[in-house]
Amino acid sequence: MFGAVIHAPGDVRYEERDDPTILEPTDAIVRTVAACVCGSDLWRYRGLQPIPQPTPIGHEYCGIVETVGDAVTAVKPGDFVVGGFLHSDNTCPTCRKGAHANCEHGGGYKGCQAEKIRVPNADGTLIATPGVPDDDLIPSILALSDVMCTGWHAAVSAGVGPGSSVVVVGDGAVGLSGVLAAAQLGASTVIAMSRHADRQEVAKAFGATHIVTERGEEGIARVKELTEGIGADCVLECVGTDDARVQAVGCVRAGGNIGLVGLPHGDLPVNDLFWRNVGIKGGPAHVRAYLPHLLDLVLSRTINPGLVFDLELPLSQVAEAYAAMDERRAIKSLLRP
Amino acid sequence: MFGAVIHAPGDVRYEERDDPTILEPTDAIVRTVAACVCGSDLWRYRGLQPIPQPTPIGHEYCGIVETVGDAVTAVKPGDFVVGGFLHSDNTCPTCRKGAHANCEHGGGYKGCQAEKIRVPNADGTLIATPGVPDDDLIPSILALSDVMCTGWHAAVSAGVGPGSSVVVVGDGAVGLSGVLAAAQLGASTVIAMSRHADRQEVAKAFGATHIVTERGEEGIARVKELTEGIGADCVLECVGTDDARVQAVGCVRAGGNIGLVGLPHGDLPVNDLFWRNVGIKGGPAHVRAYLPHLLDLVLSRTINPGLVFDLELPLSQVAEAYAAMDERRAIKSLLRP
Repeated sequence: MFGAVIHAPGDVRYEERDDPTILEPTDAIVRTVAACVCGSDLWRYRGLQPIPQPTPIGHEYCGIVETVGDAVTAVKPGDFVVGGFLHSDNTCPTCRKGAHANCEHGGGYKGCQAEKIRVPNADGTLIATPGVPDDDLIPSILALSDVMCTGWHAAVSAGVGPGSSVVVVGDGAVGLSGVLAAAQLGASTVIAMSRHADRQEVAKAFGATHIVTERGEEGIARVKELTEGIGADCVLECVGTDDARVQAVGCVRAGGNIGLVGLPHGDLPVNDLFWRNVGIKGGPAHVRAYLPHLLDLVLSRTINPGLVFDLELPLSQVAEAYAAMDERRAIKSLLRP
Repeated sequence: MFGAVIHAPGDVRYEERDDPTILEPTDAIVRTVAACVCGSDLWRYRGLQPIPQPTPIGHEYCGIVETVGDAVTAVKPGDFVVGGFLHSDNTCPTCRKGAHANCEHGGGYKGCQAEKIRVPNADGTLIATPGVPDDDLIPSILALSDVMCTGWHAAVSAGVGPGSSVVVVGDGAVGLSGVLAAAQLGASTVIAMSRHADRQEVAKAFGATHIVTERGEEGIARVKELTEGIGADCVLECVGTDDARVQAVGCVRAGGNIGLVGLPHGDLPVNDLFWRNVGIKGGPAHVRAYLPHLLDLVLSRTINPGLVFDLELPLSQVAEAYAAMDERRAIKSLLRP
């Protein structure tokens, strides 16, 4: 089979790789229907994380089950399935607490931007749809593999609920998904910080009530104007840079919460936040915990998180999918074998 | 009148001071019935915080209203009242969110270990009891001025709810109050980390289900034995030192929460906690938000937070009250004029 392999910053190649095989009785092999490129893949692409050797890449997918190990009972060959960017057993004490991203027997994949994928812990990871979904639903189902669940996780981690005021820092695919999550969770004010017209449009479609184009102190001042002068109940930090974290800290009210999902590349002044009673929570998203509910919302066409994909390419053009996101020509690239 | 003044580390004196007077129409003057010494007062007593000049000290009190300013309507002369260690207007947008410790017009007092106290923002700070309470309830009512509400705040900040497993780091008066709070909020497992027999007894009376005497890695291992091997849902960090924070981080499960109320004198590895999805929240307690409910529980004799006081002295012996706590001869000292 063929799949994407990252060799060096800026160098992603579509190469022949060994077909994945069942290694454990709990494995499934999935034939990819759609995969995509994540903002976190760009950290390596941009040379911000080491690439010690050529490495299969990608961690978002949906597809058709091809074969399953002897112990797999929840899915069968022919099922259309989606799974999260980390596999999980869904049975260990940590999973039973809903913290599937930290499953004691979980982990990642060997490159999902590929024609076939080995999914460990298939029973605790994959969810099958009833029948094969309509083709126009594929992007939204694929979005549940990471980006939509990560935006949801930011909102849940920040304690968004009915009536909350919410600021979303970051207008990438995760930030936009955070806007959708906040609106779905009942927030009455959803402020998207964005200076790109195309992303503002998606944010509005997802339920943003306000767009703030200013950044830094001006952006904070605009947010305070919209939140009784005190800042927002909840801030979703969906970038991970120092600038984004400063923005998040400035936009949250005393007693409020910051939901963190941007990969941390900056510090947080936790002792200063103490005096303002600001909470911080976040990390990798517990996809398996959120997947059943969000898949229902997608299949019933209540939400359309697939709107974050504004470029679709054949999997063989994975290099261009990376380049388009790196150069900000695309919010997020979808790939089909 | 007389009151306590701290002159230097280890040097607290009972001195004549000017009687407080109404300065703003929203003020009340309260004649102290009981006051006490806080663990946070000891930071200055031990030379860990500067004392630029002789300073009236103390911030916990209950008493009888003597006079009120023209704008005060919620309490009247003769009322028995309790107020929090920070005053608050209870009307600003931040107070309306329940974050009274961060009230936009709030602040501290000019020394509450004194015969009389000026209480700014009386309407938004003081709560009157129905009649003068029985004398044996005074310690528990006084405890609501800070220590009990601070323990409650730790538990609320850590998200303690029905069925939670909770570890309390710190067996001082705040930690013990955290045990009581966790039990009241429905925790099914409440682990008090304590190596002092007298404090263990109070912890058990407050609802601790387990006592862990070990510290460091051994303590963490014991906690994991009691929590399915993964750590506790919620950890209340009621000390503020580096050691206590390390203990808290080690005892919390992935996806769990740390409630911080120990004054921060140590760092937190927030980027490491990100990968474990551990939340952190806390700060000065929103006393006015918690006071009505907790006062009901005290007056109905449902809870007895006054058990944290194991030394009672005349206010004139305030120096000994400090020394006893500093030398760990007392958990917490109560003072009566």
